[in-house]
Amino acid sequence: MITRSEVDAAARRIGGRVRRTPVFQPLDGLWFKLEHLQRTGSFKARGAFNRLLSAGDVRGAEVVAASGGNAGLAVADAAAECGATARVFVPTTAPQVKVDRLRALGATVEQVGDRYAQAYEAATEYADRRGALLCHAYDQPEVCAGQGTLALELLEQTGGVDTVLVAVGGGGLIAGIAAALEGVAKVVAVEPRTAPTLHSALAAGEPVDVRVAGVAADSLGASRVGDIAFAVARRTGVESLLVDDQAITDARGLLWSEYRQALEPGGATAYAALLGGAYRPESDERVAVVLCGANTNPADLA
Amino acid sequence: MITRSEVDAAARRIGGRVRRTPVFQPLDGLWFKLEHLQRTGSFKARGAFNRLLSAGDVRGAEVVAASGGNAGLAVADAAAECGATARVFVPTTAPQVKVDRLRALGATVEQVGDRYAQAYEAATEYADRRGALLCHAYDQPEVCAGQGTLALELLEQTGGVDTVLVAVGGGGLIAGIAAALEGVAKVVAVEPRTAPTLHSALAAGEPVDVRVAGVAADSLGASRVGDIAFAVARRTGVESLLVDDQAITDARGLLWSEYRQALEPGGATAYAALLGGAYRPESDERVAVVLCGANTNPADLA
Repeated sequence: MITRSEVDAAARRIGGRVRRTPVFQPLDGLWFKLEHLQRTGSFKARGAFNRLLSAGDVRGAEVVAASGGNAGLAVADAAAECGATARVFVPTTAPQVKVDRLRALGATVEQVGDRYAQAYEAATEYADRRGALLCHAYDQPEVCAGQGTLALELLEQTGGVDTVLVAVGGGGLIAGIAAALEGVAKVVAVEPRTAPTLHSALAAGEPVDVRVAGVAADSLGASRVGDIAFAVARRTGVESLLVDDQAITDARGLLWSEYRQALEPGGATAYAALLGGAYRPESDERVAVVLCGANTNPADLA
Repeated sequence: MITRSEVDAAARRIGGRVRRTPVFQPLDGLWFKLEHLQRTGSFKARGAFNRLLSAGDVRGAEVVAASGGNAGLAVADAAAECGATARVFVPTTAPQVKVDRLRALGATVEQVGDRYAQAYEAATEYADRRGALLCHAYDQPEVCAGQGTLALELLEQTGGVDTVLVAVGGGGLIAGIAAALEGVAKVVAVEPRTAPTLHSALAAGEPVDVRVAGVAADSLGASRVGDIAFAVARRTGVESLLVDDQAITDARGLLWSEYRQALEPGGATAYAALLGGAYRPESDERVAVVLCGANTNPADLA
């Protein structure tokens, strides 16, 4: 469980190490937080830096992660920046381009098993055995608190909003944002109908495994929401919405055609709720949409 | 000739019609003005709106432009927004995709001659004959003053800078920026070595025709700098730099790989001067780089 005070501490810890990403106001009462301009192209940098810097002096230490995606990139980058080494576990099915990108950031890549769960198991086993620092993709307090620093910036940059729309995969980002904004603004979780981890957990009263698929599965395809995210979402009254894959594709297309921002599908998912009408703000409601990742091939946007 | 007061007037006139584009600070002392998030993907919207709104009530009027590129798009959009019709003249060699984009914005497209000069001549002849409002791509006071509003925003958003790097084609943008920042900040003109219109004009003591080519010619390929830009640049002491095409390509690539911003080559040209070392700021110099257009096919960035 985390609260605003952990997020405040994270902001002090990682200030100057991660980027203060810009906000953009396309319309009265609407802001985009352009978090895809963050180091390594997603919000994950915030949590990775906070996890590493919370561990004290990590120079020469080994940091372990299980992710072929945004979390892996962020850990590899943060480790290199902090003078640590990174060992990133991915399934043997991970595309070569992702493996190459991790190696380009200096990480050692271990390819284990054919599913993410096996890579994760190998990572935790390795970290336990070697005393290495495990950096979870979403379900650690330091990781969630780091992601939440985005919301503190957002408040400063906008002067305050009523509502923040956030995409959810494993839930690290929404855990941090909901903790940061508790009592300050409403937080709305947006998930693909094809990957409804938080939605299913809230319905079931506890995190449950779900089948994941669809256009945003590469970044939002955790099969179960994190315990921290679930607890914070329930405590703070996060509202949960689902959107169709077509709405995500439409939102991604419009963010390019109208604003020249090339998001990955998961990074455009929060906006899909607004554009597609799943979330309908009041006329005077101040709404912020977090655009959270752009590790995408933009070739299909032209 | 224009001065700060025309730019101030333009800002009052077009406020609320164009977007206040965000700034992003990737490093201490460096800001990117993300002007490619502007309406129709480039700064040209500012000048087009100022030209139209300076003409009084243009509802039902016809607006004429000669441009298959960013200026044409901006005029088509501004005309539609202001209740006017747009007639845009392009050479018969203009790619179909550009013609389609103009038509999608509601413009009537006239394809005349096989070079830009012929389309321009046809546009001015048409505007004279029909009493239509000609909106020049760069060499009209209202157009230059409109582009300069970008610099006023930049000052507010950054709290002040020492130096602004700006790409130059026909010079409308730098004319407005240099007028807005006269006595306030240094303005540096950056041009491709393959399209040195302002550089050649400053060397010759007057605007001269130059041969244009290279990676950024689609947006910076005017063959002669505008009279207004030349006069303002000389009056205000604009510094003029040239960059190689490879530096432009490198800057465009890095803006994607590091910041996930997909610029057109012309839109990345100002940054090329900094990245490639053509411009070397002092250690405490506060530098802003204008990223001015993203009407690009991002397919080659992946």
